[in-house]
Amino acid sequence: MNIAVLVSGGGTNLQAIIDQIESQTLHNVTISSVISSSHNAYALERAKQHGIPSLIIAKKDYPDFDSYDTAMLEALSDKGIELVVLAGFLSLLGPKVLTAFSNRIINVHPSLIPAFCGHGMYGIKPHEAALMKGVRISGATIHFVNEKYDEGPILLQRSIEVREDDTPQSLQQRIMLQCEQVILPEAIQLIADQRVLIENNRAHILQA
Amino acid sequence: MNIAVLVSGGGTNLQAIIDQIESQTLHNVTISSVISSSHNAYALERAKQHGIPSLIIAKKDYPDFDSYDTAMLEALSDKGIELVVLAGFLSLLGPKVLTAFSNRIINVHPSLIPAFCGHGMYGIKPHEAALMKGVRISGATIHFVNEKYDEGPILLQRSIEVREDDTPQSLQQRIMLQCEQVILPEAIQLIADQRVLIENNRAHILQA
Repeated sequence: MNIAVLVSGGGTNLQAIIDQIESQTLHNVTISSVISSSHNAYALERAKQHGIPSLIIAKKDYPDFDSYDTAMLEALSDKGIELVVLAGFLSLLGPKVLTAFSNRIINVHPSLIPAFCGHGMYGIKPHEAALMKGVRISGATIHFVNEKYDEGPILLQRSIEVREDDTPQSLQQRIMLQCEQVILPEAIQLIADQRVLIENNRAHILQA
Repeated sequence: MNIAVLVSGGGTNLQAIIDQIESQTLHNVTISSVISSSHNAYALERAKQHGIPSLIIAKKDYPDFDSYDTAMLEALSDKGIELVVLAGFLSLLGPKVLTAFSNRIINVHPSLIPAFCGHGMYGIKPHEAALMKGVRISGATIHFVNEKYDEGPILLQRSIEVREDDTPQSLQQRIMLQCEQVILPEAIQLIADQRVLIENNRAHILQA
């Protein structure tokens, strides 16, 4: 399965996918393209180091949202992409991409949806909100992306305990390592193995 | 520590507390009173079987909410209750009780708050909502009760995986056995051991 990984920053989740492909933990998956919304994302350097084609599609480089949407659609179509993986991608996708890749875009969100998600909840924010609320359990979610960003069908979730002395940063770090980087490759493998069925806005995992 | 357990139905969580006291897993805790909001709660039978004093305080038996509130406050004060445990208690507590027992009332809620809680979310409802949303992780929460029922400080949470073939009933059953009945006695013990500090609407657990 050809996948595109869309990034905006450091690309630690991209690295987790690369590592699992190279160690053959993740099978029958090729990263055909890394697309960055930012010109100076370190993720681009990671792609280069591993010989993965990369390009920059930044909204600000296009005259309007529609032409940005078109450029993204063309980039994904050119490479024969079968799954789009948003791995810390902070930009929005347009309606053309969302329609063309319906049920073929997944996102990793650093909380247990429906908690701490939705507008403005990216980066450190979900972790700040989780600590503010005083939850004892948090985690990460892999979900399909539809027009309402964090409301598409949930594919996988993984939880961890919040510690009494956690800071937003320590919680973010642990969720990234112990949740996101575990379930993101797992989700990609499930889709590559055609074990995911979406019905009535819910994702079902089929027996192997 | 003298506790009152407030119930409305079968009393399975009450039974879990009784069992842990009798097996001495739960130390220095005495159930001084079981108070039922319903005349025919099976929990009353459980109390009787274990020689625990019980009484019925049903809102409908009082002319108004204020006299109900007063009756409940008197019942709790008479017995020297130090902690009120809502274990499947479906009635509301009044302002007199909430004020007199500020930070000394805990509730068990069958979801990972802030998910699937608030108005109308009792009994099977949180589990129906969790399955409707398609979450992969659910659980239970022990929280302190203030005027806004499900919004008091969270003390403990425990999560379980939602299975592909779960029904609201099977999920309810597993959360009751594997989450509620684990963290409810644990929470009581923490409070009995004076290891809980509430500050700025958050509950902190102190080292033993």
